[in-house]
Amino acid sequence: MDDLNEIETPAFVVDEAVALRNIAAYQSHCDEVGLKLRPHIKTHKLVHFAKAQMDAGAAGITCQKIGEAEVMADAGLDDILITFNVIGSAKLDRLYGLARKVRELAVTADNADVIGGLAETFRDAGSPLRVLVECDTGAHRCGVTTPEAAADLTRMIDAAPGLVFGGLMTYPAPGGRKDVANFMTATCAILSRAGIDCPEISSGGTPDMWQADKSGGVTEYRAGTYIYNDRSLIKRGVCTLDDCAGRVVATVVSRPAGDRAVIDAGSKVLTSDLLGLSGYGLIVGHPTIAIEALSEEHGTLTSDGEMPLAVGDRIEIVPNHVCVVSNMFDAIWLRTADGSLRQMRVDARGCVT
Amino acid sequence: MDDLNEIETPAFVVDEAVALRNIAAYQSHCDEVGLKLRPHIKTHKLVHFAKAQMDAGAAGITCQKIGEAEVMADAGLDDILITFNVIGSAKLDRLYGLARKVRELAVTADNADVIGGLAETFRDAGSPLRVLVECDTGAHRCGVTTPEAAADLTRMIDAAPGLVFGGLMTYPAPGGRKDVANFMTATCAILSRAGIDCPEISSGGTPDMWQADKSGGVTEYRAGTYIYNDRSLIKRGVCTLDDCAGRVVATVVSRPAGDRAVIDAGSKVLTSDLLGLSGYGLIVGHPTIAIEALSEEHGTLTSDGEMPLAVGDRIEIVPNHVCVVSNMFDAIWLRTADGSLRQMRVDARGCVT
Repeated sequence: MDDLNEIETPAFVVDEAVALRNIAAYQSHCDEVGLKLRPHIKTHKLVHFAKAQMDAGAAGITCQKIGEAEVMADAGLDDILITFNVIGSAKLDRLYGLARKVRELAVTADNADVIGGLAETFRDAGSPLRVLVECDTGAHRCGVTTPEAAADLTRMIDAAPGLVFGGLMTYPAPGGRKDVANFMTATCAILSRAGIDCPEISSGGTPDMWQADKSGGVTEYRAGTYIYNDRSLIKRGVCTLDDCAGRVVATVVSRPAGDRAVIDAGSKVLTSDLLGLSGYGLIVGHPTIAIEALSEEHGTLTSDGEMPLAVGDRIEIVPNHVCVVSNMFDAIWLRTADGSLRQMRVDARGCVT
Repeated sequence: MDDLNEIETPAFVVDEAVALRNIAAYQSHCDEVGLKLRPHIKTHKLVHFAKAQMDAGAAGITCQKIGEAEVMADAGLDDILITFNVIGSAKLDRLYGLARKVRELAVTADNADVIGGLAETFRDAGSPLRVLVECDTGAHRCGVTTPEAAADLTRMIDAAPGLVFGGLMTYPAPGGRKDVANFMTATCAILSRAGIDCPEISSGGTPDMWQADKSGGVTEYRAGTYIYNDRSLIKRGVCTLDDCAGRVVATVVSRPAGDRAVIDAGSKVLTSDLLGLSGYGLIVGHPTIAIEALSEEHGTLTSDGEMPLAVGDRIEIVPNHVCVVSNMFDAIWLRTADGSLRQMRVDARGCVT
């Protein structure tokens, strides 16, 4: 199949050439500035693109949940960092099993309870688990808030027989590069005085990816959204519309009033994520039409002046936040280089545990 | 299994006794006021509860997408209304196939293009398709905006050999009962002069469900959210906390600062739906803790004063909007009357086409 009009809507369509170009471009940047790239698979959740990222030169992949990592490991991805505090016996058991399957596995931790659970689980494991200490450099989500606390957790990891200190990790606030450098430099200084080497400093985030460099000793960068890009990243100047590889195709199902149209994609497709934007996505080729409201299965469009769309028309939407939107589909349509369309299951969709 | 602490988080847990009580209570109300109840399965997407709603006395079920209806029909639900404009040959083919499977099938339409497609598809079908005309009585989503336009579409359906006029349908704005009555009364008057009977007037919406009655000739009511209820309905005074059958169980994974905790449920579980509320859900037993921010797999909680939660603690969250949250899980946990926990696949999850 090669005609976009033949697929049922709503659909998520990925232009493979654009996605591969995005992968290559950012891999080149990381190669140039001497950073390891460890792409986050949360955006695409596809084995296909995880392998493409590795083939392009990535050092490994990043997952947020164990479930995502299990899917990737089963498909042969063998160097995985899980940037999440793993808690509870069921998840620790799964993590132990996962470590048996892959060549390299690492997790992050930002508190003693988590490290205690990891240490207990991996105490008698043949090979130790790598644990990075998560640092809050300004995003105020997870992470220890001081270099001293980071050093304390590092010592705890260092002292646990089943664990090995894997380095420092942060998910910075946008524009927080200097804060990352300050935090990491201060922490490494404390560690150095304690005779502990820091093997890796991992930072991340697509918004600041073109500014990523080795300041503050950063050695590794994690980015996810860059493979598809989205409206929020256009707004931030990180990409252009042409770089947006992942788009929702929807059909106009109703034209109830002069300035109003309704499409077959609602919050169960586009999600309610706004990311500070107005409206629920960018309609390609129709800059004056807004996706003003969503109900679960309907999107309400309004236009400045007469609505140019008719019932049956199809539109392409660049989502505000592509990572949550691709997760709403059991399968995507991949537009391959030869122009054909191929359906592909979203391997790690909905892996929330 | 009967211990909530043994299930992995994040999880969606449904108290079956509460859900069945909600089903019974609203069925009783509809029986008392003489309305047919046609529950919308978009909230639970489960064959289990669709059958429970039928067993309690529902006239049939409502689905929003053909995919949902296909799942329900395959499981034996045999009286289905799809409240959506069906467009395009692929969907019309599926609709035709669906009509062969069930005893009663009806759809809605609000424009001539949709009716034209239905008429063409069902022209030579053995039994005609019931089509209700969707009317905009104030919600400003789909629906014809005047009684005259409703009457015009009715005549078009009436004239099509493969179609039969099924009545009028509206999804009203909250508090819009009088607008519904005015619109329907005016439309029926026009139809009556044309010699056309209106066999059904279908209205819906959980927010106003306790005020649903036969004013304006309403004969049928569609409600979905009432089976689980949610924070938005508590806020509107439609239900109490005890009526909220569907809850997200999450685990505290980080306590990075005095007033901050982070849970393992983010926007890929709780969604960004606010419905006019502040924060992303109600934490049961902790009225002073807010779910202030969500990233994809983390929820950030803040408290007035010192945060009482510790790493490893589990919390129960009543979602802002339960319909979109249950759709995020491949499976729910059903807490049955004997106290045991049983995992159940969400049959129609993600059926967006």
